Amino acid sequence: MKRRNLIAGLGAAGALAACSRTPSADCAQSSTNTTSKAETLEWKMYTTWPKNFPGLGTAAAFLAEKITAMSDGRLTVKVYGAGERVPALETFDAVSRGSAEMGHCAAYYWKGKSPAAPFFTSVPFGLTGQEMNGWLYFGGGLELWRELYANFNLVPFEAGNTGTQMGGWFNREINSLADLKGLKMRIPGLGGDVMQRLGVTTVNIPGGELFTSLQSGAIDATEWVGPYNDLAFGLYKAAKYYYYPGWQEPGPTLECIINKDAWDSLPADLQAIVSQACQATGSQMLAEYAARNQQALESLVNDHGVELRAFPDEVLAAIRDASEQVLKELVAEDAFSRKVYDSYQTYREQVRQASALAERAYLNARN
Amino acid sequence: MKRRNLIAGLGAAGALAACSRTPSADCAQSSTNTTSKAETLEWKMYTTWPKNFPGLGTAAAFLAEKITAMSDGRLTVKVYGAGERVPALETFDAVSRGSAEMGHCAAYYWKGKSPAAPFFTSVPFGLTGQEMNGWLYFGGGLELWRELYANFNLVPFEAGNTGTQMGGWFNREINSLADLKGLKMRIPGLGGDVMQRLGVTTVNIPGGELFTSLQSGAIDATEWVGPYNDLAFGLYKAAKYYYYPGWQEPGPTLECIINKDAWDSLPADLQAIVSQACQATGSQMLAEYAARNQQALESLVNDHGVELRAFPDEVLAAIRDASEQVLKELVAEDAFSRKVYDSYQTYREQVRQASALAERAYLNARN
Repeated sequence: MKRRNLIAGLGAAGALAACSRTPSADCAQSSTNTTSKAETLEWKMYTTWPKNFPGLGTAAAFLAEKITAMSDGRLTVKVYGAGERVPALETFDAVSRGSAEMGHCAAYYWKGKSPAAPFFTSVPFGLTGQEMNGWLYFGGGLELWRELYANFNLVPFEAGNTGTQMGGWFNREINSLADLKGLKMRIPGLGGDVMQRLGVTTVNIPGGELFTSLQSGAIDATEWVGPYNDLAFGLYKAAKYYYYPGWQEPGPTLECIINKDAWDSLPADLQAIVSQACQATGSQMLAEYAARNQQALESLVNDHGVELRAFPDEVLAAIRDASEQVLKELVAEDAFSRKVYDSYQTYREQVRQASALAERAYLNARN
Repeated sequence: MKRRNLIAGLGAAGALAACSRTPSADCAQSSTNTTSKAETLEWKMYTTWPKNFPGLGTAAAFLAEKITAMSDGRLTVKVYGAGERVPALETFDAVSRGSAEMGHCAAYYWKGKSPAAPFFTSVPFGLTGQEMNGWLYFGGGLELWRELYANFNLVPFEAGNTGTQMGGWFNREINSLADLKGLKMRIPGLGGDVMQRLGVTTVNIPGGELFTSLQSGAIDATEWVGPYNDLAFGLYKAAKYYYYPGWQEPGPTLECIINKDAWDSLPADLQAIVSQACQATGSQMLAEYAARNQQALESLVNDHGVELRAFPDEVLAAIRDASEQVLKELVAEDAFSRKVYDSYQTYREQVRQASALAERAYLNARN
């Protein structure tokens, strides 16, 4: 009885949806066409962040909501937080094999799949969010990204950016390169590789353990994201100095990855809807961080006595040099990664001057 | 005969489009239902730029194309360049009264309707593009904009941003405030009001006459947009010095305006499609300028011998002070404009510090 009800229910729901635009005798016939535009799809989106995590999880929710609304429910997307169905770092493989149709994550998590992956999120001393979008949409970046992910049965989209992050929390001041030697810092990825070259002992600790590790003295410093996310983590209670700028992630892009078979099965209008929802999410997320970071920053400084510090010029210069070396070595042994690196570096060198005369010169004049 | 053919042709086209998803006997009936989702709408978009004008016109084309694609032709948008149907500066009134359903333009053109209008594009020493989106989407800006435009039977959306512009072309160097006195410059809007306070004689000349006016010596200087647009205008042939930064328009937002009756007649899914297409266009346009400005800049400097100059600190400081005065006086006699100003200023003051630690500090460290 239950089973009959379930099947009947599904049938009714399916027919209702499939027939919403075809109120005619042809309804049953048209709903059996699997490529019909009136077909109703439910997609799963796995993510590498907790559900509704500020900025990152809220962007995933925005993306899902907009796809569902624009398609009038023909493509309904349900978001799963990290660990709900698979651990965060298995999202790539899960979407690749089709366990979920979509993922919202960051390419640099997949460095083990290709040394080129980090270029599609952020690299030390790389592009800002706005510059990154220029490379992706008008500088050949997106084409390279698609070429890489095609090997994994995935189609990638830009779907978010946090803007320039902060340099991190330190329990003592960094006045010279000497102060970095022997420092124990949580800084994963390429930023960690850079810091190691300057004598820092780097460790990778999950976000949830940062506060305890910092407070117990197991680490002396940690980077996380920026004021909006860092305030919520309470890191200010365990370290007094908040350093800037976030050279390690100057404009990290978030990605929406889609299983290629699922993508290919979509009619053109739903493909356009997914693609534009991703791009709109990119704008929405940058706006959210722009507006929320400053509110969080004021709370950190005024309510919690955090001391803001700029990295000294000497330290930044050494970090910049080490960053170039790390990137070169990263791509040295992989031809495709070298191609991505060349495209990225050429664009970065060009855009540097335009940004210097525009946003940079203006922000300096205003402040 | 001709008339009959025309009517027959329209009828056939209308039926074809309306029936594209309903190949059934009910077709004629369903196409008479004006709120049916299968109804096919054709909207006109008037714009304040030439069709496909780099950056501005290409953004309008992108917006129209994405709405059409996402709706699978249920809402088809046809773009008209400035002057094709109405003169550029009559776009607002034309959309307000429903001659066209949409417009792609810039709010500061409508300062005559409300002193608050420029805040929704850009004001001297105001917000950058990224900061502006923070105010619009998360700082109450969009709600204020909607409140203002409701008085004109319009619904506004953010649909583009050029990023920080350049300060302009000068036929002589500006080394001090004294060099501004008596200068004849084409600089419209609030930027012009600011310059007047510093002794500049400002004039407003249409874009098409800039080159001749500059070359003949009728004016000594002009601002336009930035490298991408300025290169195409050949301004480098008439003035040698290219000044930065573009304090007068640090991040101008482009708008999509929609006739309120037309908007209200859309089903929710088409409303979502239009809204998200606008937001995606915002990202696309910032990316286009980021990528194209640097290419144009290289050509200007390397191929055409243009000399880049920063405004001296003394000049920028005086411009900054004059800008604050101009904004205060602008809103002094209008309660709603004062409300917009207060919201904008509060946000700007807050976001200033966050941007200083993030994008600004990073761009300074990188360069």
